[in-house]
Amino acid sequence: MRKVAIIGVGMSRFGELWDKSFRDIVIEAGIEAIEDANLEGKEIEAMYIGNMSGGRFLSQEHISALIADYSGLASLNIPAIRVEAGDASGGVALKEAYISVASGIHDIVVAAGVEKVTDVGSAMEIMDSSIDQEWEAFHGATLASLYAMMARLHIHNYGSSEEDLAMISVKNHKNAVNNPKAQFRREIGIETVLNSPYVAEPLKVFDSAPISDGSAVVILASERVARKHTDTPVYINSVVQSSDYLAVQNREDILEMKAVKTATRKALKLAKCELKDIDVFEMHDSFTITELLLYENVGLAEKGRGHELVRDGRVEIDGEKPVNPSGGLKACGHAVGATGIRQIGEIVLQLRGDAGKRQVDAEKGMAVNIGGTGATAVVSILGR
Amino acid sequence: MRKVAIIGVGMSRFGELWDKSFRDIVIEAGIEAIEDANLEGKEIEAMYIGNMSGGRFLSQEHISALIADYSGLASLNIPAIRVEAGDASGGVALKEAYISVASGIHDIVVAAGVEKVTDVGSAMEIMDSSIDQEWEAFHGATLASLYAMMARLHIHNYGSSEEDLAMISVKNHKNAVNNPKAQFRREIGIETVLNSPYVAEPLKVFDSAPISDGSAVVILASERVARKHTDTPVYINSVVQSSDYLAVQNREDILEMKAVKTATRKALKLAKCELKDIDVFEMHDSFTITELLLYENVGLAEKGRGHELVRDGRVEIDGEKPVNPSGGLKACGHAVGATGIRQIGEIVLQLRGDAGKRQVDAEKGMAVNIGGTGATAVVSILGR
Repeated sequence: MRKVAIIGVGMSRFGELWDKSFRDIVIEAGIEAIEDANLEGKEIEAMYIGNMSGGRFLSQEHISALIADYSGLASLNIPAIRVEAGDASGGVALKEAYISVASGIHDIVVAAGVEKVTDVGSAMEIMDSSIDQEWEAFHGATLASLYAMMARLHIHNYGSSEEDLAMISVKNHKNAVNNPKAQFRREIGIETVLNSPYVAEPLKVFDSAPISDGSAVVILASERVARKHTDTPVYINSVVQSSDYLAVQNREDILEMKAVKTATRKALKLAKCELKDIDVFEMHDSFTITELLLYENVGLAEKGRGHELVRDGRVEIDGEKPVNPSGGLKACGHAVGATGIRQIGEIVLQLRGDAGKRQVDAEKGMAVNIGGTGATAVVSILGR
Repeated sequence: MRKVAIIGVGMSRFGELWDKSFRDIVIEAGIEAIEDANLEGKEIEAMYIGNMSGGRFLSQEHISALIADYSGLASLNIPAIRVEAGDASGGVALKEAYISVASGIHDIVVAAGVEKVTDVGSAMEIMDSSIDQEWEAFHGATLASLYAMMARLHIHNYGSSEEDLAMISVKNHKNAVNNPKAQFRREIGIETVLNSPYVAEPLKVFDSAPISDGSAVVILASERVARKHTDTPVYINSVVQSSDYLAVQNREDILEMKAVKTATRKALKLAKCELKDIDVFEMHDSFTITELLLYENVGLAEKGRGHELVRDGRVEIDGEKPVNPSGGLKACGHAVGATGIRQIGEIVLQLRGDAGKRQVDAEKGMAVNIGGTGATAVVSILGR
């Protein structure tokens, strides 16, 4: 397997992009990435696209061909592959793109993520299609209520609090102020979170990521080709995908995210490093409890002690282990299929030193992207 | 890149499977494939699943995790990847699975395709989501009407006829009689086709494949591992995916399927053979005109002369170049995301000599799976 680098990053703004179509936002991000990589475009040999539900958000399947067509790449007849794994679609797209370059099949490949969600009224119901319809949703469970159950259990068993969860939201909002692509660029106080209405008790509106329109694109290249195009390649040291039971009821312990644990362990092994070597993290904070559970399941905190990281400021941008300098899903925005790639884009910018006012000092970074309640997890480790 | 073999094949029946759920049919095919490959199941290292529209047919995205869960493979935490490219989803799943084994990442991988379409009333509208919604469907075009336009032009320019198209349907129905998994196991006469109502003139009900419930599974293994499990491995000599403009209006010539041409040329080159070396074909006859255009675009006939193959019987099961011995999409059934894998299953059975009464004498076979009107094409060449 060959070494693979990321040589270009592009992102649309995340938010309610009512003046732009699905096509527009993915092309916008794509052009930014192509320019960032010093490419013309015709060097691209394949496209992998993470998208959760073009079918229900746009009545459009076959979006791989749509994007190839609209970007002009259909004239090259390159393969364009859509992958889907709920809101882990972006991460899975990265992994498949990585394999296609590492294996020697392709030299330059696009990994993109895109979602346009704000054109329909039933967006929350569509988001719930990442959980088990027959065994969960049809009985009244929603994505929010399943995470609320986890939050309740964590609070009950381990003495965490709604305030701890709220502080994760406050942290991520603070970080997003310095991210020009973020949906919510304003600081909030803990009272804003605590006074917001419950979505599913104990989770409130401000514990929940928005769902957003947006797109993110990264361009992968083999090491040899990367060196021709950039002086600042960022290497994919590893990218590992794992699965867990889709229905939460099938899991032995609902606070254990086995897909995350397995993927993290393998990713660290393949990258030949330990968790202490990772300087910056992007983690999937679809709800504040999600980020807290990821601290524990990735191994930043022991089980039942994730909230201590929040209390002592270790995951703040100037802390020992900054998590979500981009603002995370909560404040940068959660454009579902784009999120896994957006996280990678942020890590690349951080490792290149191109993160502007939210820059942290980092040589290695990790992105953790999950689907639904964690049945799919993709863990990526990047290094300079 | 390592040599990759197919060591197991499984299929559900295709048809209106109202007594079975989505989960049931994919597990049924999976178990058949696992038994055929002499595996226990726990040897499986990854799953690739082609599925067009779980979102709209079932309100269920994240079906990769659903299948991993329901098949018991989630306990192994293996990666499960759904890919989507309209009705080329199965072919793309095969290609991604192939890459994951050829590259050395995995030794044993499942490539599956599945669709459950008959539980909703809007199935035809959902099928149309494989064409460009904004530039085609919103203006009144449907999948059938776009193919009808191609059929009209072919008849006008080249002197083919509705009778020629009808004979393709008659041939495929005849072949399906001997396929125990087929949806329609009865011969029809040309009058049945010609007297059936127009769907989009000149295409009639009997020119059109049904859309079906069904699943197909093949198990891929590296050459070394394959030898441990089977004495009759069938090798994937090549599998190539290409793209074309999604919107038919963007194509220079609507009878040219550039994705098919490009993929066929590359697949033959990688397999180090010529078209004359291929003994048996499975081709994507979503409509009779689709199969006719594939004769020409694959190169079995010159442009404008595809109908001659039908007239002189060369594509009959006892002809020089049998096409769709399974009965094809028309008569075996078209379970959308399953079709690309079902085609591969048929080729494997033919090459192993396990095709029963529909057996042809073949050493090499080709499957041509396309999405929508041909914006995605996957061409696979298999050999003993």
